[in-house]
Amino acid sequence: MTFHASVQENSRQRRERAAARIKEAGAQALLVSDLKNVEYLSGFNGSNAALLLKADATSVIATDGRYITQIAAQTGEPSDMQIHIANNIYQAMKEVAGETDFCVEPTLSVGIAKYLGDPDILEGVVEGERLVKDDTEIAKLVAAGELADNVWQEFIAQGGIAEGLTEIDAAADLENRLRRAGADGLSFPTILASGSNGSKPHAGVSRERIVPGLVTVDFGIYLDGYASDQTRTVCVGDPSTRDYQLYDIVYRAQKAGEAMLRPGAGLRAIDNACRTIIEDAGYGEFFVHSTGHGVGMDVHEAPRAAATVDETETLVKGMTLTVEPGIYLPGETGLRIENTYVITEDSAQSLNASSTELIVV
Amino acid sequence: MTFHASVQENSRQRRERAAARIKEAGAQALLVSDLKNVEYLSGFNGSNAALLLKADATSVIATDGRYITQIAAQTGEPSDMQIHIANNIYQAMKEVAGETDFCVEPTLSVGIAKYLGDPDILEGVVEGERLVKDDTEIAKLVAAGELADNVWQEFIAQGGIAEGLTEIDAAADLENRLRRAGADGLSFPTILASGSNGSKPHAGVSRERIVPGLVTVDFGIYLDGYASDQTRTVCVGDPSTRDYQLYDIVYRAQKAGEAMLRPGAGLRAIDNACRTIIEDAGYGEFFVHSTGHGVGMDVHEAPRAAATVDETETLVKGMTLTVEPGIYLPGETGLRIENTYVITEDSAQSLNASSTELIVV
Repeated sequence: MTFHASVQENSRQRRERAAARIKEAGAQALLVSDLKNVEYLSGFNGSNAALLLKADATSVIATDGRYITQIAAQTGEPSDMQIHIANNIYQAMKEVAGETDFCVEPTLSVGIAKYLGDPDILEGVVEGERLVKDDTEIAKLVAAGELADNVWQEFIAQGGIAEGLTEIDAAADLENRLRRAGADGLSFPTILASGSNGSKPHAGVSRERIVPGLVTVDFGIYLDGYASDQTRTVCVGDPSTRDYQLYDIVYRAQKAGEAMLRPGAGLRAIDNACRTIIEDAGYGEFFVHSTGHGVGMDVHEAPRAAATVDETETLVKGMTLTVEPGIYLPGETGLRIENTYVITEDSAQSLNASSTELIVV
Repeated sequence: MTFHASVQENSRQRRERAAARIKEAGAQALLVSDLKNVEYLSGFNGSNAALLLKADATSVIATDGRYITQIAAQTGEPSDMQIHIANNIYQAMKEVAGETDFCVEPTLSVGIAKYLGDPDILEGVVEGERLVKDDTEIAKLVAAGELADNVWQEFIAQGGIAEGLTEIDAAADLENRLRRAGADGLSFPTILASGSNGSKPHAGVSRERIVPGLVTVDFGIYLDGYASDQTRTVCVGDPSTRDYQLYDIVYRAQKAGEAMLRPGAGLRAIDNACRTIIEDAGYGEFFVHSTGHGVGMDVHEAPRAAATVDETETLVKGMTLTVEPGIYLPGETGLRIENTYVITEDSAQSLNASSTELIVV
């Protein structure tokens, strides 16, 4: 009961801080529709929910009959948050709001926004709170990263990737180990890409057999509502000279990005630090994505480290960021190395402890 | 190459039919943003994409640099569909559209709709095409259902559910068998709920041990872009008199729904057929959700069988529908039985062949 009471108190404080942002924006209320935002503010993680948060920090949460037991248990039914059970949660919210002039989140669908009478958009209220992780959240991110990384090390040590296995067999083995170790699920579809599949940054998993050369494995889990995200590239059999060279470039780029992480570091500068190393090695055009993203309740969330972000955007203690440069040679091969970090007082802590040096299997 | 050519031709025909709907609605173009809709029209299944389909059936598809290799391979680069690679796909679409007055889908986020200048909403264009499955799609749905159901039968025969296992261990075993059998992934988070967890229709999987009594297992996979969805409830140890009674009621309700399935059957009447049996047995208030939904590229899609749908809505050959009544006694126990069906000329074919009679393990 102590645990639940503290979770409930944590949710209440989050609603208060978000409500202060609503008030500051001069709005009366915000209809929170993003399901992770609803969970962040209430503790409820059902698949159908909306939460009307007023500037005075009182709120109404709506879901449907499937969740009648779960919502009571997860929210603890706090006195400042009414629970509504309804077939159509947006119809319920319209009625509940009555004369209250509420805003909506930009991620709400335009169809529902029209149904609600085209309210104004208020951006970043809950995301602003979620951007900097509190100690409870960091503990969960550390636990998720640790579980995934420990399983990875065991998987590789026990021959999980080997010539002749199909990509899907190897991925199934990794995913099964993750699940048995306690993962609630995958935070995104596993990528396990051998041969020319490695040249597709988001290759997924094919039914083809693993061939000698680089194999990129990008995987993540959910644990207690928080995601992990890491990529390792291994080499099946002796690396060719080019495999060595490519790996060394990406390895140095990843380390250069990591070395920049601390409060005050610019998010564009971090991208630039990685990108410059790959460009100087002559592979700039083959690093086809941005350098990193935050990880929390969503596996992709703010901030972003990219060439396109404003140069005034900087890291703050408690933010998370992946650093994941890669090189992809169309139709030939590819690789990526990625850790997720949480920004500390004066640097950053990797959530994925295993070495990023090349492992030959 | 023949296969790819026919896939390409199939996508082209879909774009033509969708374009005819756009024309019929008096619109110039539709910006397709739902990723499954984009895949349906193009063959491309990347995680970031939009497709501008004009009333003359020409189109432009946009994605980012990560998918440069994949989009060419999956679309076959047809002459009537231009490919754009851009960091910001909506900025690219705005430029591409130029003077074309395009509509958007209702599921597009209101934030992006505002960015695009608040275009009109045009509903149901691609969904209208997806509602009735063509032979290629039915073959994929059959394959997905068959794979999942075969794995289920093996899992149960080999003691996958037994007293003392944790829910998560049993679910991990089932999921691993699905993956090894070739599933591309899960179509939704597995539910494997024992004891009082069974009273939550969307329980998920806990770390608790399986106890004697009913265990509800709701699971599904993706195979070649199409979902499966089925629920079986088994009994661990000898069923109590109440377990028998509850199972018999839900079993009869599920069969009553199934018996109604044919072209022309009303979707509200199907819900009513299931609901009446549970109500007559005195458990009406504990059947807290609707009876069924379509299954296709999304695991939940149109149509819906529910008390709230218009009574003129009827089944058509080629539609899919789940029939999944359940009873949930808060804090005590619960169960559900579900098959997915495809509507045939004069009845329906179950995609999940295993018996729905009570299995005692």
